[in-house]
Amino acid sequence: MWKPDRQSQKPLYEQIADHLEQKISYGEFPPGSLLPSERKLAEQLGVNRSTVILAFAELRSMGIIESRSGSGTRVSQYKWGATPRHTPNWKRYAEGGSFLPNVPFLRRIREALSQTPSMIDFASGELSGDLSPMNEIAMLMDEHHYTSYLGYANPQGYIPLRQALVAYLDQYRGIQTTESSILITSGSQQSLFLITQCLLSPGDAVAIEDPSYCYSLPMFQSAGLRLFRLPVDRDGVRPEDIRTLYKKHRIKMIFTNPNYQNPTGTFLTDERRNKLLEIASELGLPIVEDDPYSLTDYEGEFCPPLKSVDPHGNIIYIGSFSKIVASGLRIGWMVAPHAIVERLADARQQMDFGLSVIPQQVAAQFLISSHFEPQLNRLRMQLRYKRDLLIEALQKELPGLIQYNIPQGGIHMWCKLVPEVNDAKLLEEGIKKGVVFVPGSVYGSDSGYVRFTFARAKEEDIGPGIAAFAEALRELIK
Amino acid sequence: MWKPDRQSQKPLYEQIADHLEQKISYGEFPPGSLLPSERKLAEQLGVNRSTVILAFAELRSMGIIESRSGSGTRVSQYKWGATPRHTPNWKRYAEGGSFLPNVPFLRRIREALSQTPSMIDFASGELSGDLSPMNEIAMLMDEHHYTSYLGYANPQGYIPLRQALVAYLDQYRGIQTTESSILITSGSQQSLFLITQCLLSPGDAVAIEDPSYCYSLPMFQSAGLRLFRLPVDRDGVRPEDIRTLYKKHRIKMIFTNPNYQNPTGTFLTDERRNKLLEIASELGLPIVEDDPYSLTDYEGEFCPPLKSVDPHGNIIYIGSFSKIVASGLRIGWMVAPHAIVERLADARQQMDFGLSVIPQQVAAQFLISSHFEPQLNRLRMQLRYKRDLLIEALQKELPGLIQYNIPQGGIHMWCKLVPEVNDAKLLEEGIKKGVVFVPGSVYGSDSGYVRFTFARAKEEDIGPGIAAFAEALRELIK
Ligand SMILES: Cc1ncc(COP(=O)(O)O)c(C=O)c1O
Ligand SMILES: Cc1ncc(COP(=O)(O)O)c(C=O)c1O
Repeated sequence: MWKPDRQSQKPLYEQIADHLEQKISYGEFPPGSLLPSERKLAEQLGVNRSTVILAFAELRSMGIIESRSGSGTRVSQYKWGATPRHTPNWKRYAEGGSFLPNVPFLRRIREALSQTPSMIDFASGELSGDLSPMNEIAMLMDEHHYTSYLGYANPQGYIPLRQALVAYLDQYRGIQTTESSILITSGSQQSLFLITQCLLSPGDAVAIEDPSYCYSLPMFQSAGLRLFRLPVDRDGVRPEDIRTLYKKHRIKMIFTNPNYQNPTGTFLTDERRNKLLEIASELGLPIVEDDPYSLTDYEGEFCPPLKSVDPHGNIIYIGSFSKIVASGLRIGWMVAPHAIVERLADARQQMDFGLSVIPQQVAAQFLISSHFEPQLNRLRMQLRYKRDLLIEALQKELPGLIQYNIPQGGIHMWCKLVPEVNDAKLLEEGIKKGVVFVPGSVYGSDSGYVRFTFARAKEEDIGPGIAAFAEALRELIK
Repeated sequence: MWKPDRQSQKPLYEQIADHLEQKISYGEFPPGSLLPSERKLAEQLGVNRSTVILAFAELRSMGIIESRSGSGTRVSQYKWGATPRHTPNWKRYAEGGSFLPNVPFLRRIREALSQTPSMIDFASGELSGDLSPMNEIAMLMDEHHYTSYLGYANPQGYIPLRQALVAYLDQYRGIQTTESSILITSGSQQSLFLITQCLLSPGDAVAIEDPSYCYSLPMFQSAGLRLFRLPVDRDGVRPEDIRTLYKKHRIKMIFTNPNYQNPTGTFLTDERRNKLLEIASELGLPIVEDDPYSLTDYEGEFCPPLKSVDPHGNIIYIGSFSKIVASGLRIGWMVAPHAIVERLADARQQMDFGLSVIPQQVAAQFLISSHFEPQLNRLRMQLRYKRDLLIEALQKELPGLIQYNIPQGGIHMWCKLVPEVNDAKLLEEGIKKGVVFVPGSVYGSDSGYVRFTFARAKEEDIGPGIAAFAEALRELIK
C-alpha cells in the first residue's frame, strides 16, 4: 500500500492530497462515493490525523471533495461527472520551485508605492528623474540612427560597450582590463545572480557583510548557500573576521560593497583594504567587489576599488549604471578571469539569451560622450544637497530620537532609532502617513534601524517625508 | 580524524584536496615537508588509492604540492613561503554551481561562427538582417523622443507594451486577455527559464516533445527535472501518450510547440489539438504552449493557438518577437493566470531586476505602428522563397541521400540522412567546408537527422551552403 515519503521536501499533506486526487481521477473513488474517515486514513497511512485534515482541506478547496457534517466526506458530483475536467491547481504551482519569494517588507513597500502614487519614497534605491541624464540620452538617441543588425547579441555583451568600458575602467576606476574579461549584465543584480547560481553549489558557505544589500536578496538562500556575517562598523568590515570564518566554515567566497556601502554608507579604510586583500590572497579566497556607488563621492575624490590593487587576481569586480546614470537602462558589468566570464556568459544563454542590443548601444554612446563627466559632477552636487536636506529634516523633526553617521557618498542614510519600536508597525504607520522607507532588519541581523534613501524623493518632499515619518514614530511610542 | 563525506555532492577527491589545502595553508604541513604516501593516505581516509591520486593531481595543478619520482610528494617551497599568497582556483569555481554548460555541439557551432565570419549559417535560429525591419525600427526611434523616466521598470513589464499586446493577442492570436495576465520577458527563453525554475521543483516529471528545442536546453536538467518524451510524428504529438506518462510518472507539466515546431516544422492537427486539451483538462495538467512561429505561416492563414480555445485555463502561453521582428530586441511575453505572473515577476526581480525600458518602448511602438502588418507579409513571402531555395538545393545536391517533409511555416527544415554517419564528424567536416547546421541529436533521442535553418543565411548562400554540406557528407561516406 502507498505511504507518503518522509524524506521528500514536499509536505506530507500535499503528498496525500495528490495521491487521493490521482485515485479519484482514475475512478477508484467514483463521483459521490464516500472516502475513508480522517481517523481511518491517518491510521492506514501512518500519519497524524491533522495531516489528513489538511489534505482534505486542500482537496475541498479544489472542489474535488465535499464534506457534510455527520455524513462524512464524498467525492464531488459536480467536478467529477462523466467527463471530469478541471483547471490546474495554479496556486500550488505558484508556491513550487526552489526560488524563494522576495522579502515581505519589500513586497509591501512596492504594493504601497503602486497603490498611492503620492507616497513619498525613501525606500527605492534609485535616482529621481532629474538626477538621470534623460535629455542627454534622448539627444544621443536622436543623433544616432540605429540600423545595425538586431540578431542575437554576443553572449559576453555588445563589443563597443565592452571597449568603452575598458577605457572607463582605466580612467575612472584605476582598473586595467581587456574586453575579453568583461561580461555585460542586466545590472549588478544579474552579476550577483550569475555568481551565486553558477560558481557556487548548494551547501557552500559564503561571507557577506552585515548589514548588507545581500541580506535583502532571498537569491542567496534560493541558491542554497550558507551565509555567514562580517559585521560592519564605522570603518567597514574587520578583515580578521574572514580568517575566523574560513577556519570555522571553510567559506568559499566573500561579498563586499566597500565604497559607500548599502545600507550603512560606510567607506572601508585603507588599512582594512590592504589587510582584506592580504588575507584573501593568503587563503586563495575570491572576493566579489560590488561597487555601484564609488563615483558618487561628494568631493569628487578618486576612491580606488579593491580591484585596482589586486595583485593576485582574487577579485571579481561588479559595476553598474544604475546609481550614476539610470537604473531603467539595466546595464551592469563584471570584470573577472576569462574562464569565469565565459562560464557565466554560457549559462546566461539559457536564462535570457543575453541583453537587448539597444540599451547596450545607448550605454556605450553615453559613456564615450561629452555628457558623462558633467553628469557625474552634477549628480554629486545634487546628492550632497539632498543628503543635507535629509539631515536638516532629521535634526528638526527627530531630535534625540535618531542617531547616524554622515555619509560622504552614496544615496543611503542608515539611522538608529533610539526608542524601541516594532519594524512592521512602524512601516504600516509610515504608509498611513504617506511615507515609505526600509526597515533595517531587511539588511541583516540588527533591529532598530531604518534606511532612508535620499536620491529618489523630490527635493521638496524630503522635509515633509521626514515630518510624516516622525509622526508615525511618535504614534508608536506615545 | 577527518574523513570525506560520502553523502556530499562534492566528489571525494575534491573534498580530500580541499582538506589537504587547508592543512597546508594552516602550516600543519610546512613548505618543503613530505606528505604521506598515496597508499597510506588512502588507507587512513578509507578511499581508493585512485581517489588520492586525483586529489594530489588537483593540488599539483594549483602549484601547492610537487612530486618527484622516487622522493615522494612535498609541499611546494615557492607558493607557500613565509607569507603564502595565491590566486583562487578559478577553474574549480568555473566548474561549480548547479547550472549545466550548454550542449557541446552548440558551443562548437558558436565558436566556428565567431572564428570564421564567412561561415554559411544554417544553425542559428534567427532572421537575417534583411528579414528584420531595421529601418522601420530606426525610423520609429527617430520619431519618438525618449525622455520618459528611466527608473527600475514595472516588474511585470512596461505597461504600454502590455496594452499593445492585449490588442495584438486578440487580433492576431485569438486570445482574450488583460494586462495583468501578461509578463514581459527577455524572449521565450526567459519565459521557459522562469517556469522551470519557479513553478517546478527538482525531481518533478515533465513531458516534452521529442525531438524538441527543449532538449537543446540543459536548463531543464539544471532545474533537476525528470524529462519524459512525447514523440512527434507527421501530425505532431500523440495526445494519448500524455495519459500514459501521467499514469506512470505523474508528470506535472507539458511543454509543446504546436505550430511549425522547432526542429521538425510540424503543425499539430486539429483533431489532436482537441484531444490534447481534453486530456490536459481531464488531468488538471498545465500545458506550456511555446508559440514563436505561428505568424510565419506562408499562406498567411490564421493558426489558432491552443490558448485561444482553452476552456479550463490549462495553458500558459509564450510568445516572442524573435522570429517575426528581431531576436536582438529580446522581447517575449507570457500569458498566464495572475497568481503565476505575479510569482514569476517577483522571482525575476532577484535575477535581473526586470528588462530595460528602452527595447520595451520600441517593441510597443512597433506593434501599434503601421509597419507591423507589412513586416509579417514581407517576412512570409521571403521565408517561403528561402525555403524553396533550400529545397531546390537539396534536390540538386543530395538526391537520394536525404528525406524531409516540406514545412508550411517556420524557419527550420528537418532532414533525415539516408546514409548512417557520425554527427560529430559530419559537423567538423561541414565546418571545414565552411557551413554549419545543427546535428539532430541536439534535439532529442533520434540520431541521423540534421536541422537546416533557412532564415539566417543570405539567399545567395543557400545553394553554395548545401553544396558544401553535400561535399562534407560525401567525404564521410566514401
Ligand atoms: C550594493 C548593491 N548591489 C547591487 C544593486 C543592484 O543594482 P543594479 O542591478 O540596478 O545595478 C544595488 C541596488 O540597490 C546595490 O545597492
Ligand atoms: C521553440 C522555441 N522556443 C523558444 C526559443 C527562444 O527564442 P527567444 O528567447 O529568442 O524568443 C526558440 C528559439 O529558437 C524556439 O525555437
